[in-house]
Amino acid sequence: MKYYGAIEAGGTKFVCGIGDENGHLISEKRISTISPLKTLPEVVNFFREEATGAGIKIERIGIGSFGPLDLDLNSPKFGYITSTPKPGWSETDIPGFLFEKLQIESIIDTDVNAAAYGEYLWGTGKNLRSLVYFTIGTGIGGGALINGRPIHGLIHPEMGHMILKHNLLTDPFPGICPFHGDCFEGLATGPSIDARWMTSPEKLPSDHPAWSLEAYYISQALHTIITIISPQKIILGGGVMQQSFLFPLIRDLVQKSINGYVRSEMIISRMDEYIVPPGLGSRAGLFGSLALAISPPD
Amino acid sequence: MKYYGAIEAGGTKFVCGIGDENGHLISEKRISTISPLKTLPEVVNFFREEATGAGIKIERIGIGSFGPLDLDLNSPKFGYITSTPKPGWSETDIPGFLFEKLQIESIIDTDVNAAAYGEYLWGTGKNLRSLVYFTIGTGIGGGALINGRPIHGLIHPEMGHMILKHNLLTDPFPGICPFHGDCFEGLATGPSIDARWMTSPEKLPSDHPAWSLEAYYISQALHTIITIISPQKIILGGGVMQQSFLFPLIRDLVQKSINGYVRSEMIISRMDEYIVPPGLGSRAGLFGSLALAISPPD
Repeated sequence: MKYYGAIEAGGTKFVCGIGDENGHLISEKRISTISPLKTLPEVVNFFREEATGAGIKIERIGIGSFGPLDLDLNSPKFGYITSTPKPGWSETDIPGFLFEKLQIESIIDTDVNAAAYGEYLWGTGKNLRSLVYFTIGTGIGGGALINGRPIHGLIHPEMGHMILKHNLLTDPFPGICPFHGDCFEGLATGPSIDARWMTSPEKLPSDHPAWSLEAYYISQALHTIITIISPQKIILGGGVMQQSFLFPLIRDLVQKSINGYVRSEMIISRMDEYIVPPGLGSRAGLFGSLALAISPPD
Repeated sequence: MKYYGAIEAGGTKFVCGIGDENGHLISEKRISTISPLKTLPEVVNFFREEATGAGIKIERIGIGSFGPLDLDLNSPKFGYITSTPKPGWSETDIPGFLFEKLQIESIIDTDVNAAAYGEYLWGTGKNLRSLVYFTIGTGIGGGALINGRPIHGLIHPEMGHMILKHNLLTDPFPGICPFHGDCFEGLATGPSIDARWMTSPEKLPSDHPAWSLEAYYISQALHTIITIISPQKIILGGGVMQQSFLFPLIRDLVQKSINGYVRSEMIISRMDEYIVPPGLGSRAGLFGSLALAISPPD
């Protein structure tokens, strides 16, 4: 049996795991995201104690990280976190640090590309030609798998920052994105709900207008995703999507918004299978990172 | 030497060509897009006269077609035009007709995916991991090449129908898309310029506010494309983009709109190489179709 490491590197916590070649987790630990100098040595200790200390050899570590990341294969800073607003984390080279301390190679991608890959290998997106994975929580991110490979290009998708239609007469809230104001993340991320209604999202009842507005902005984003990528499935995870009553609202609004233009059975009559929660639940990020380690996309 | 056919199947004309295996055209003809019964037999005659009649064997025909198309490999209607508003063309099976009359296999994709593929093989997008090609003219379409393959999924990209921010106070024009009103195509296609300003676009001087508004909507669409696909290059063709003064306006607005969030040299300082006209000029569609025939993407 071979063993692999996984790190879901998030804004509030790093979830670290060790799994076998079949994708079964044998060990797991949550470490707070403080600073690289405090957090990364704890990550290294986890692998030292749980693997090296237990006589387990780790073949490779998969990392699904917050970003933006430098994923340009020709860049001297390949794998670095680049311009994150998260204090202290800009220019952090997680794979380099792990290799220096553990002599283990890593494979890194964005948290959402990793989650999309986990869903493609083991979740609700098995073997699809294309799927998109969104996390909608304290931020909004989106990843895409096309023909079994995550999208990389100039950098990588930053789908939370797409433009939406924002009617200032009906919703005068200016949005909270420090770069774009009322982009998707600016209008629909958890903290934007908080800022617009001056109440934390968990305290808003399901019939509060906050939720129909939230479903409206998410449906716009999915309309745009359908017209640009035409994915075979759209997976919505993250804290905001824990409000599962949002799913039927979103499906209905997407169907209305596409308005018969895309003649696919999925849009016309199988929305319940088309816009869905992650098959791996809240574990999509960790299992996606493990999937990257076990079967790196070429 | 081997020979291949190409058909750029557009809304006003079908441009047919025969090229050799090196991509050199040896024959070409324009045929009006009237109805399938009138247009397709003329297409067949072109290949009969110019190839069969001249002793040339055509190995395969590449078709870049207006759509939407059914590109689901499992569908009995694979390769059909589906729900086009163009009268008479719904449910048309161009590859089937060509095979029946000529006994030549075809490979079909959307006009813009074909153009993107042509640019990838022979144009300004050579060997890039990802590129997006837009045509902005009597309609708006967008195609994408990722790792050398056009995107297909539920159907295929229909990028003209993405959602943009539309401020009704500054631009009360409701948009002309019969499905979505003020989607990208509804706000920025050639006929929408005509309808908004009640003047045909060719008659509007370059300092007319129509053009800064046009550049604004195009820049929004590119902002969204950059956040979703992160392409290594964006190619803009089509009739509206013949107004080449639009390029610097668009580059400037995209840079302002992204606002430093995507830290890529291309966005920061190499916009002239990033948002560009087609390397194959107005021939991108025809050469893209030929490219599909010569080197079908897997």
